[in-house]
Amino acid sequence: MQRDTFLIGAGQTPFGEHWNKGIRELMDDAVDKAIEAAPCSALDIDCVIVANMLGESLSNQAHIGAIAAALLPHHPPALRVESACASGAVALHTAIGLLESGRAETVLVVGVEKMTDASTDHVAAALMGAADAERDLSAGLTFPGIFGLVATRYMYEHGLSREDLSLVSSIHHQFAKENPYAQFRSAVSSHDVSKSTLVADPLRLLDCSPISDGAAAVILSTKHKSSMRIAATQLATDSVSLADRPTITSFAATREAMHSALAESDVRREQIDHLELHDCFSIAAVINLEDLGFFEPGKGVDYYRNPEAYEFTVNRSGGLKGCGHPVAATGIKQMIDVCKQLERSGKHYGLTQNFGGACATCAVHIVEHRAAAGASPFSTQ
Amino acid sequence: MQRDTFLIGAGQTPFGEHWNKGIRELMDDAVDKAIEAAPCSALDIDCVIVANMLGESLSNQAHIGAIAAALLPHHPPALRVESACASGAVALHTAIGLLESGRAETVLVVGVEKMTDASTDHVAAALMGAADAERDLSAGLTFPGIFGLVATRYMYEHGLSREDLSLVSSIHHQFAKENPYAQFRSAVSSHDVSKSTLVADPLRLLDCSPISDGAAAVILSTKHKSSMRIAATQLATDSVSLADRPTITSFAATREAMHSALAESDVRREQIDHLELHDCFSIAAVINLEDLGFFEPGKGVDYYRNPEAYEFTVNRSGGLKGCGHPVAATGIKQMIDVCKQLERSGKHYGLTQNFGGACATCAVHIVEHRAAAGASPFSTQ
Repeated sequence: MQRDTFLIGAGQTPFGEHWNKGIRELMDDAVDKAIEAAPCSALDIDCVIVANMLGESLSNQAHIGAIAAALLPHHPPALRVESACASGAVALHTAIGLLESGRAETVLVVGVEKMTDASTDHVAAALMGAADAERDLSAGLTFPGIFGLVATRYMYEHGLSREDLSLVSSIHHQFAKENPYAQFRSAVSSHDVSKSTLVADPLRLLDCSPISDGAAAVILSTKHKSSMRIAATQLATDSVSLADRPTITSFAATREAMHSALAESDVRREQIDHLELHDCFSIAAVINLEDLGFFEPGKGVDYYRNPEAYEFTVNRSGGLKGCGHPVAATGIKQMIDVCKQLERSGKHYGLTQNFGGACATCAVHIVEHRAAAGASPFSTQ
Repeated sequence: MQRDTFLIGAGQTPFGEHWNKGIRELMDDAVDKAIEAAPCSALDIDCVIVANMLGESLSNQAHIGAIAAALLPHHPPALRVESACASGAVALHTAIGLLESGRAETVLVVGVEKMTDASTDHVAAALMGAADAERDLSAGLTFPGIFGLVATRYMYEHGLSREDLSLVSSIHHQFAKENPYAQFRSAVSSHDVSKSTLVADPLRLLDCSPISDGAAAVILSTKHKSSMRIAATQLATDSVSLADRPTITSFAATREAMHSALAESDVRREQIDHLELHDCFSIAAVINLEDLGFFEPGKGVDYYRNPEAYEFTVNRSGGLKGCGHPVAATGIKQMIDVCKQLERSGKHYGLTQNFGGACATCAVHIVEHRAAAGASPFSTQ
């Protein structure tokens, strides 16, 4: 890394249904909180990077960089980044590059999605933009369908049971109960998951992350310091269609981004205290734990059998399943949650993994917590 | 600037109607040409940045970063940048930041748009994503409508006549005749422009840039050198809706980006030899020449009365009007054209101005040509 980048301010809206707010208002809420928590003023922001996937499809709104810039009094330079469901983390990556170049000293990154105004069919069709329109959409696939194929194959290869899979969502919902920003805060048993409506065999409704509105914002800076330093930011890609891959039960982009992130940060996997990973579907959480190297292939579900047995935590926020998944806000929310967990536990290293499509883009970030090095990026409220 | 960035390879498709090609094939054609012209192999590309605006709206395809990464044998990290019609230049800006950070040494930037599959109504609606959906779209505005308002006000303030405006398109078409990649290569008289179908008073069909398919790609590098060095890359933003601005006959984002670009490059305006500016509508070219400081307010059309009288050239490629305007490819095509003009003339400085919406985002780049410093970024064919 050229210059140390610190996360100096953070804020988010609750994730869920915001009937009275559009893209602009959701961003404004999250941005206000992030600025309030930061040791600088809005006028110190040199650039704004917006993460958004579905603005054109669901709200007729592109050009959201400029919309966000207008939330600040001085209209700083701004742009939008999109890498499907990985847009949030990819926007963080873009911001860190810009900070390291010296072109900006303080950058606002805001992820936003407004999904609940549209019908479920419309949302499902728009989300298929993350897949390959020619190969996957034209074959009639949806994302539950894609991850249904992945789950079916994984069960065949590794003997995972329907009850195993149900554990994942159940645990994520249990964690979400403690998160005031989560969309779902009630208990869901693994029996509830197994008995929920079948969506794309073997996946049931409660295996799937929901349709959500929400925004999350962070302020990153090389000029101002805080207790949270970005230790690694890495991206990797893979073929967009599953049809072009040698296996569908392990995602190469996660393995590659994780390998590079450990190398960049000079942190060992065993040093990671808190993880937030991309559980768009229950099966994805299992595969991610394996691809990140915390479990052997076929063993990822072991974590969910007894989470307390491990020294690291996974998705204590509630994950995408419990918190909701306003697509491009998720990668930024993961970063906020892992920082909050580090602040609460007093531990040192957090990791986020955010992917797009069926992991055709994966971003892995590692953050280092040093309480002595600077202030908290969270407002005291 | 931290490190010198060179444009080491460039390629584009013809702009126009490509009935047998989609987003993937258009990108592939441009990328192949850029790699062929560059002094490195595809495997040297560390990152891909895609500029695209309309993929979701017109082709059901988001996540085009990962689609582009799959065109290369090694699936490098990739992302998409969108700032409406300024997406191309904003992608260049993002790539240059990444190169200056040292995270990448060679970056492929490809802009692509596939527009002709959709109806004109559908395209016009999708393009309104560049405006403010809540304030402009809901008021029934289209982009010809927005620039019709701008032209009406400009005519009132400065006494510009319908015949003056017609000169602009006529000259751009005249230049496009010499450009083998241009969509329109036939002569259009100013009389033809004045008599073309009324679209949004006072703007007529031949005041408007067309609906186009196309892709343009460049390879930027801090490792490999060429005769073309990026001397400045600057972004600025303004309110997205005209309703929020003190004037609509001058665009503050252009003035701000130009001011910053001159400062960054340490080049004086008088040293600029070739300009490619954003003539989405004829009136925009007039206003841009004023905001870039080459003419006083109200005098921009003077250029079009006698282009040969000036030491600098403007839109010798044919501009958006003559070449076509596959939205996110335009900013990259402008950079390619200005480099070609510098190579042909043997002169030193070129400038591109690419804006989004009604100039809510503006990017200005300055490129320096030093024939002795390295090879041409164009293949010899």
